[in-house]
Amino acid sequence: MKTIRQSFSVEYSFPVFFARDVLGSDDSPLAELLSGHGEERVKVLTVIDAQVVAAYPSLLEKLSRFAEKHRGRVSFILPPFIMRGGEICKTQPQEVERIHALVEKHGLCRHSFILAIGGGAVLDAAGFAAATAHRGVRLIRMPTTTLAQNDAGVGVKNGINAFGRKNFTGSFAPPFAVINDFDFLDCLPPRELRAGISEAVKVALIRDRAFFDFLHYARERLAHFEPQAMERMVTRCAELHLEHIATGGDPFEFGSSRPLDFGHWSAHKLEDLTGGEIRHGEAVAIGIALDALYSFHQRLIGEIELRRILDTLEGIGFQLYHLALNWIDVPAALREFREHLGGELSIPLLNGIGAKVDHHEIDADLYRRCIGTLEERQQRMETTHAKRQLSSKDSGDPRYLLS
Amino acid sequence: MKTIRQSFSVEYSFPVFFARDVLGSDDSPLAELLSGHGEERVKVLTVIDAQVVAAYPSLLEKLSRFAEKHRGRVSFILPPFIMRGGEICKTQPQEVERIHALVEKHGLCRHSFILAIGGGAVLDAAGFAAATAHRGVRLIRMPTTTLAQNDAGVGVKNGINAFGRKNFTGSFAPPFAVINDFDFLDCLPPRELRAGISEAVKVALIRDRAFFDFLHYARERLAHFEPQAMERMVTRCAELHLEHIATGGDPFEFGSSRPLDFGHWSAHKLEDLTGGEIRHGEAVAIGIALDALYSFHQRLIGEIELRRILDTLEGIGFQLYHLALNWIDVPAALREFREHLGGELSIPLLNGIGAKVDHHEIDADLYRRCIGTLEERQQRMETTHAKRQLSSKDSGDPRYLLS
Repeated sequence: MKTIRQSFSVEYSFPVFFARDVLGSDDSPLAELLSGHGEERVKVLTVIDAQVVAAYPSLLEKLSRFAEKHRGRVSFILPPFIMRGGEICKTQPQEVERIHALVEKHGLCRHSFILAIGGGAVLDAAGFAAATAHRGVRLIRMPTTTLAQNDAGVGVKNGINAFGRKNFTGSFAPPFAVINDFDFLDCLPPRELRAGISEAVKVALIRDRAFFDFLHYARERLAHFEPQAMERMVTRCAELHLEHIATGGDPFEFGSSRPLDFGHWSAHKLEDLTGGEIRHGEAVAIGIALDALYSFHQRLIGEIELRRILDTLEGIGFQLYHLALNWIDVPAALREFREHLGGELSIPLLNGIGAKVDHHEIDADLYRRCIGTLEERQQRMETTHAKRQLSSKDSGDPRYLLS
Repeated sequence: MKTIRQSFSVEYSFPVFFARDVLGSDDSPLAELLSGHGEERVKVLTVIDAQVVAAYPSLLEKLSRFAEKHRGRVSFILPPFIMRGGEICKTQPQEVERIHALVEKHGLCRHSFILAIGGGAVLDAAGFAAATAHRGVRLIRMPTTTLAQNDAGVGVKNGINAFGRKNFTGSFAPPFAVINDFDFLDCLPPRELRAGISEAVKVALIRDRAFFDFLHYARERLAHFEPQAMERMVTRCAELHLEHIATGGDPFEFGSSRPLDFGHWSAHKLEDLTGGEIRHGEAVAIGIALDALYSFHQRLIGEIELRRILDTLEGIGFQLYHLALNWIDVPAALREFREHLGGELSIPLLNGIGAKVDHHEIDADLYRRCIGTLEERQQRMETTHAKRQLSSKDSGDPRYLLS
């Protein structure tokens, strides 16, 4: 028996820009990306989130002007493809097929571009379409939500839902470039703006204590979406995310560890159980609180640290309990999480603030008690709020909150 | 404007085995691959080409016995999924969906296996399903045809057809392992066995003069499928293919050059135009003859070299002309080829025997004349054959053949 071992590596490199007014400004990174591809005019198919079009009515006109200005070197397929925003575009496989049909109709090749402008769901679906047409058309992502700018939009994954499972079908496919235009954040409703901040809290907790200190310190400014605080939050969160992919040793997740999934096993279930009524970021805030509590009971963080975590999340404006938490079948949810991960169960927990540790044996009963604690805490806060008799002793004693 | 450049590399490594009786032997590489994954039994979904089941009736029983023997460590999903073989499975998107449904139903995870046993089309479709379920379930390929064993089955691509275009939808996804079991070749009909040999001629011509000399020398033995010659042909061809992927500098084809596509631009069209009546390998033999003639007229190879190439192909038993060659709209076909490639047109031509050179400007009229030459040549051979008056002067003078 003869055996040949095939070994090779594939190099990826892409820029992530943080800017404003990308379609209007004279030194636009988008113009730079799309020019310089030889004599032939490069083809660009634009896929835009319908929610963004609605919130930002001048976008289509700006895009037209941009296309007109650069028509010498860039051939924009017009009109752009407007895709339904939110999770619905990931549960409808025909959205991917429509993009494929446009790629075919307009003769795009592997060196053409798909420019995807939208929230995480649109980027995921358009990204899957781009990755699989001709085995990969170049993808430029312009994320428009906090969550997409600081997290999913700078990553290497795409996916759509199938069989009622989130991201069942998808691939790993780094983009050609990412452009974070902060102007898009100005058009977001408050709930959407806030939701994405939880990913920053998450990545700070597992990777960067100083960044967590900033988030704690700036929690009130973030609650009011003060632009400077928001830009710093988005930029550092994206940077940490990119650092993790580049230095984590397993960018395409061939192993079982998924450190960035801190707070996520329960978040995925909450989203499922509420049929998308709660946003991904809102579910992650609850998931972080739950995993922080579990870490506390595992003596991985102390009471003061736990308090700062819960204060930060609440200070930013997150609710840390939802009725659907009680509907989670904990062992079944962990099993499902393991299946999607592959291999053995691996739940990232905190190891102090700014570091994480993977646990492979999970105490489901303890998780149930932690859920109970979050519920009681919420009830007490509501009662306290109703009485408008907030005693500093009651809210200041962590034993009381964590019993 | 802040810019972060994200750079990282992804390492791939997989074994390619050349063996016999993989399901029956005691030191089976398959058993080795599937064991050693911790305590839990690893799940394996088997996808088998219906044409292989028909040609090799004991296969299912062998697989059952293998599953029974290794049930302590491996959980085979039984019965296996039998997929229609040949191009039809790539034009029916529901075949991929069916595999996805089985992955979901049986709770396969990213560390489970899909074992695909079949010809190139089944490997392509099952490979695409494996690459996109959970963003990648581990794929073990057991190619069963000459062409799949020496070429497509050891590569890094998968794909299905869409919009009437071959491999419109697909991805780059290296397998977990490849097992070439020569026993499968014994069950193939002669036409299928022969078709795959053209890929060996192709890769020899562009990369390995000594291998071409072997193929020329062994052409009669290959025409009779003598096992030792066949095994050597398959092994060296697969090895050259693997070498190209590992050392070519662009395993996922981000650039425009596709050296392994020598002889392929017209082959793809021939397959299209004949609706699959001629096999891929048969079309490639014609494509090689055509590109060799074009290379001759570009003074890249001499008459003697051209003669040896045509003799080798014909000695193995290939026809070097098909009526459909005249139906090819050469400029349109080149344009389509460029689109699928991406970027600029790049046609690999011979540069002597054992080396290639890319041409970016193509003389469509010269290609039409080369097609004419192949047609005349075929007519003369038929006439000569009919008269049974083969004069050594007529068939031996290359100027006569190549005018």
